[in-house]
Amino acid sequence: MIIIMEPGTAQENIDRVVKSLENKGFKIVLNQGEVMTVIAAIGDKRLVDPHALGCLEGVRKVKLIQEPYKLASRESHTHDTVVEFDNGVKIGGYEKPVLMVGPCSVEKDFDGLLQVATVAKEYGCQFLRGGAFKPRTSPYDFQGLEEKALIYLARAREKTGLLVVTEVMDSSDVDMIANYADLIQIGARNMQNFKLLKAVGKCNKPVLLKRGLASTIREFLLAAEHIMCNGNERVILCERGIRTFDDSFTRNTLDISAVPVIRKYSHLPIIVDPSHGTGRRYLIEPMSKAALIAGAHGVMMEVHHDPENASSDGAQSLSIEQFKSVAKHLNKLIGRIDYDNKIVKSEMELNNKV
Amino acid sequence: MIIIMEPGTAQENIDRVVKSLENKGFKIVLNQGEVMTVIAAIGDKRLVDPHALGCLEGVRKVKLIQEPYKLASRESHTHDTVVEFDNGVKIGGYEKPVLMVGPCSVEKDFDGLLQVATVAKEYGCQFLRGGAFKPRTSPYDFQGLEEKALIYLARAREKTGLLVVTEVMDSSDVDMIANYADLIQIGARNMQNFKLLKAVGKCNKPVLLKRGLASTIREFLLAAEHIMCNGNERVILCERGIRTFDDSFTRNTLDISAVPVIRKYSHLPIIVDPSHGTGRRYLIEPMSKAALIAGAHGVMMEVHHDPENASSDGAQSLSIEQFKSVAKHLNKLIGRIDYDNKIVKSEMELNNKV
Amino acid sequence: MIIIMEPGTAQENIDRVVKSLENKGFKIVLNQGEVMTVIAAIGDKRLVDPHALGCLEGVRKVKLIQEPYKLASRESHTHDTVVEFDNGVKIGGYEKPVLMVGPCSVEKDFDGLLQVATVAKEYGCQFLRGGAFKPRTSPYDFQGLEEKALIYLARAREKTGLLVVTEVMDSSDVDMIANYADLIQIGARNMQNFKLLKAVGKCNKPVLLKRGLASTIREFLLAAEHIMCNGNERVILCERGIRTFDDSFTRNTLDISAVPVIRKYSHLPIIVDPSHGTGRRYLIEPMSKAALIAGAHGVMMEVHHDPENASSDGAQSLSIEQFKSVAKHLNKLIGRIDYDNKIVKSEMELNNKV
Amino acid sequence: MIIIMEPGTAQENIDRVVKSLENKGFKIVLNQGEVMTVIAAIGDKRLVDPHALGCLEGVRKVKLIQEPYKLASRESHTHDTVVEFDNGVKIGGYEKPVLMVGPCSVEKDFDGLLQVATVAKEYGCQFLRGGAFKPRTSPYDFQGLEEKALIYLARAREKTGLLVVTEVMDSSDVDMIANYADLIQIGARNMQNFKLLKAVGKCNKPVLLKRGLASTIREFLLAAEHIMCNGNERVILCERGIRTFDDSFTRNTLDISAVPVIRKYSHLPIIVDPSHGTGRRYLIEPMSKAALIAGAHGVMMEVHHDPENASSDGAQSLSIEQFKSVAKHLNKLIGRIDYDNKIVKSEMELNNKV
Repeated sequence: MIIIMEPGTAQENIDRVVKSLENKGFKIVLNQGEVMTVIAAIGDKRLVDPHALGCLEGVRKVKLIQEPYKLASRESHTHDTVVEFDNGVKIGGYEKPVLMVGPCSVEKDFDGLLQVATVAKEYGCQFLRGGAFKPRTSPYDFQGLEEKALIYLARAREKTGLLVVTEVMDSSDVDMIANYADLIQIGARNMQNFKLLKAVGKCNKPVLLKRGLASTIREFLLAAEHIMCNGNERVILCERGIRTFDDSFTRNTLDISAVPVIRKYSHLPIIVDPSHGTGRRYLIEPMSKAALIAGAHGVMMEVHHDPENASSDGAQSLSIEQFKSVAKHLNKLIGRIDYDNKIVKSEMELNNKV
Repeated sequence: MIIIMEPGTAQENIDRVVKSLENKGFKIVLNQGEVMTVIAAIGDKRLVDPHALGCLEGVRKVKLIQEPYKLASRESHTHDTVVEFDNGVKIGGYEKPVLMVGPCSVEKDFDGLLQVATVAKEYGCQFLRGGAFKPRTSPYDFQGLEEKALIYLARAREKTGLLVVTEVMDSSDVDMIANYADLIQIGARNMQNFKLLKAVGKCNKPVLLKRGLASTIREFLLAAEHIMCNGNERVILCERGIRTFDDSFTRNTLDISAVPVIRKYSHLPIIVDPSHGTGRRYLIEPMSKAALIAGAHGVMMEVHHDPENASSDGAQSLSIEQFKSVAKHLNKLIGRIDYDNKIVKSEMELNNKV
Repeated sequence: MIIIMEPGTAQENIDRVVKSLENKGFKIVLNQGEVMTVIAAIGDKRLVDPHALGCLEGVRKVKLIQEPYKLASRESHTHDTVVEFDNGVKIGGYEKPVLMVGPCSVEKDFDGLLQVATVAKEYGCQFLRGGAFKPRTSPYDFQGLEEKALIYLARAREKTGLLVVTEVMDSSDVDMIANYADLIQIGARNMQNFKLLKAVGKCNKPVLLKRGLASTIREFLLAAEHIMCNGNERVILCERGIRTFDDSFTRNTLDISAVPVIRKYSHLPIIVDPSHGTGRRYLIEPMSKAALIAGAHGVMMEVHHDPENASSDGAQSLSIEQFKSVAKHLNKLIGRIDYDNKIVKSEMELNNKV
Repeated sequence: MIIIMEPGTAQENIDRVVKSLENKGFKIVLNQGEVMTVIAAIGDKRLVDPHALGCLEGVRKVKLIQEPYKLASRESHTHDTVVEFDNGVKIGGYEKPVLMVGPCSVEKDFDGLLQVATVAKEYGCQFLRGGAFKPRTSPYDFQGLEEKALIYLARAREKTGLLVVTEVMDSSDVDMIANYADLIQIGARNMQNFKLLKAVGKCNKPVLLKRGLASTIREFLLAAEHIMCNGNERVILCERGIRTFDDSFTRNTLDISAVPVIRKYSHLPIIVDPSHGTGRRYLIEPMSKAALIAGAHGVMMEVHHDPENASSDGAQSLSIEQFKSVAKHLNKLIGRIDYDNKIVKSEMELNNKV
């Protein structure tokens, strides 16, 4: 930690900061410049609240050096985390990227859902997605079928072998959702619902954590840390677009660079959701490709058997015919990436053996 | 609703949109220009999902004309809502602005809390604030004393007569918090935790709803709508800073203009929190004044008996001595505003009688 | 144009708006709903200032339907613009994507520049970039070698055959720069320097227009319009990162989705600059790939013969060895894209012939 | 400067950084922790480019401690700068806040301008504002009357005694504008047009520098530094709204907190423009009051004799009748502030004498 003092502050203010940090076991290096004094404190950051430090008399600024997350950090865990599911599907590291598809919300028409799932399976997807509980900005919009939707998803899983991913919105629903889902999703609006993070941290299912629409990458990894430090280390991250000043042509700005950044600073898998990330159907294919070639471990897309009558987010859903075309192109790209990754992996293994 | 079609789209696409809207009871006015066609649809927006409409073939954009909130809107409720508490304190309309003060988190030292509360009472404040459950970005930071904190707050209320405002973080805690608090706070991170909004919408205590740090004013009012349409119309809004590109000198950007905007478009009371809104102690006084003179119904400030050792957010807390000076200046300003409001009000009453 | 009136506004206010628009030749369709009145006006938007309209008594909001740019728009110009240079290099449409490389600033050491240019040529690049006049946030940073740098760039062009792209910062320098450069760059900070846009609009060299760091795509296309309506239609757009709330891991957020959005709504070529867009050397390769696969017509990268001693932006520059590796991977990807584009093109031609 | 090395980096990388800084005369303090090494370098920051440092092998991050501006900083210049005009009007410090009013653009109708100026003078304003050269996002919008407008402004000055403030958009126009204006304005879009900053830095008129709509406060002060280090220290800053994610109810977000922040960290005067800052006429009064009570040295407002027919920005302009009401309320507030400031000042003088 670096503490920068106000220029010309009294010596007793400097002494007070130093003493307070030494009492907490920090090693102090003091740099007294002509204009200002800088205190470097080496020790366990978790023992001190930088905001509290910041309010000591004469302190101008407190700068952290080490990232505040530990379990999610590449530094503490150098190998990639690969999340493996019961049927052998793997997400992370140099595994073949996965595809997660399905409607925004599960609706009354089970046959429509099954139709999407069947085509998804046929085109090589691994996951069926679909909302049972829907967070809606307006209270007058469709809020989801709730448990009935979960039953539908489970039935579609039985018939197709796809894994099921669905969102939990409240800590009291975690057990119910964990009964049906293979992968529990935390939505963007709940990324800092800490009670919910704690609850999924204590359950035994992998968690898909979506980035909040105004969350920094640091806060995103700290949200993962909330889950992990409660015992559940099977966290998959999902970039889904951030809020910026421009929403005329896209609903959000899909931050593709988050993919290589997170692969560098964390060991957790990271996938991308271009449907929510852009809000525009025609952008799903180019942005999925961009995500995959930049290193994403998978892509999540909205596909609806009848988007014009979808009860939510139709404008960003692919129809089944559109999906077939997108999937064909993505599978071609994934094939190439998988091939390249195999070479990288075998070289890595070779190097490790020698 | 206005539907703008892609230039040169086929007539059958236009017909499909028109028919679909007419089926839902909308009155249609069709404007076919040389370059593009625009469809104006007059009817109940709640019967149609604009996103679904947006995905009909040939539709470029769907624009809403009426705001999607009803209960929170000034249009449906022209008189200001004034929330009244058991002890006669009122928030809203042309009532005298209120002051809510206290530590960020309630801590083990009850005497410290009581000290703050006593001075607060003495300086004309109406509310004691303090966190029992703390949302913290890092899981390694102090998370709050939970029910013990609520007991402390209730005790301080007994001794001072101040009303208690404290945050609820999970729907399962609403009943417990409602037992102790006079005003239940929904924090910025939970502004779109819809299960929680529903839960407080069903309880019989007034709610203080903080604006999400990347929430538009429209989303803010829609979050209030979630509470109101569940039966609880005693909602007080709180602007507490939004996230922008500049966080070097302030933690957030306090959006003072939200105050007059909300007073124009909604009837709900709106207060301001400059402590979280700026993250800097020296900005509390000027930004409180700015908020009050722009029409805020109150100000919420962090005050701690020993900010240097606060377990959270010390840098933005006033010490008791600093608070006394700030309160003196704010009370002077509030006195003038109250005097001006009384003139406005008596003129209004005069006009209504004539 | 759609004009939404305040609910309950007087009939005379509605009449005034209607009359004012009819006087300017607009065709009016009036929709008087129960709650509010909406006026649709079909005509030439350029005859009226929406802001002025917005201040007529009783007007709540004015919404534009047609985009305000014409020359830059796909609607007015359905075929892709392909900018062709003297040596036959082409940018735009389905042409093979180009690579532009070189140091941030041209420095005193000509041999270093030549070294970069020689390797760039060898690895298939088409353009040498380098700043002669540098916009620097701090007045104490290196401001560029000015005309001497232009002479160096021209010399490197002679020796390698690369085309030269360099930035102009002031309208009085346009002629000098046009003497040396093959492509004149307008930097992000000058995207709305309208005098400068006008000046390059009157010169006979193609222009590379960088997106302002807080400019919407609409403003970006309007800036192109400023150049085009002065006579110069050879405008190449460049996405180079936008400013968002998160700058911890990247300097800006590179908006990859701008590429397919602009390809849909404009006919102008669009390239991407991942060096400025991310500010991190390790992100250049993945973000270049993402840009190219999403449809970018080229990529601009900073390469320096000795980044550790670069006089500006060393942290985001590749060394020559790093560049070789990146270029090898990008050329492989470009080869595949070029092959795919050729198929698309021949199919298009086939379809047009039939 | 603090240099944070990548964890586990080789000793030779650390040595290289240390040596490089020692060669430039920095005093080095090395903190080698278990996980990572931190290098504190005390010296003249201007001798080194932090970006270049950042690209040395093994460097994770470079953090600046001292602000990069000097002349604009309170540290180097502890007394408030007060800019004084020929007629004795003063801006800055504890002087009475000023009012600058007038139309967005000067138009053909001189009588309209004079009407505004006359009422402005009558209501205690000190400055007449009006654009001669208008930066317009669309090339099809009104671009200003150019020199004719300057002549009109000068004529209105003669008749009323108001000082004239008007914008310069290009370095080649500085001399012409300086001939007519008392205060030369740099618009928000040109805040980082460094050639223009240099040009006004060399002229002998005070400069009103508007904050760029996506500029940090640090960049704002650095732009002032560009002017000041060219010899012109009479710089007045102007906050005029920043671009955020919410533009439904206001065009920009007026950052009132910039006022007390800048008064703390700089000695330069700072005024506020609520017309551009909000884009809504009804917000001018409350936001002007907020700015003034938070410490602004003045307010700039758009007033037009016939806003409905204004050639630019009518929606944010006050009519003359509206202006009278706003001015009455602002003058009342300014009177109180002036009175308070006089007390503060006389106390200060008293203290200094003792």
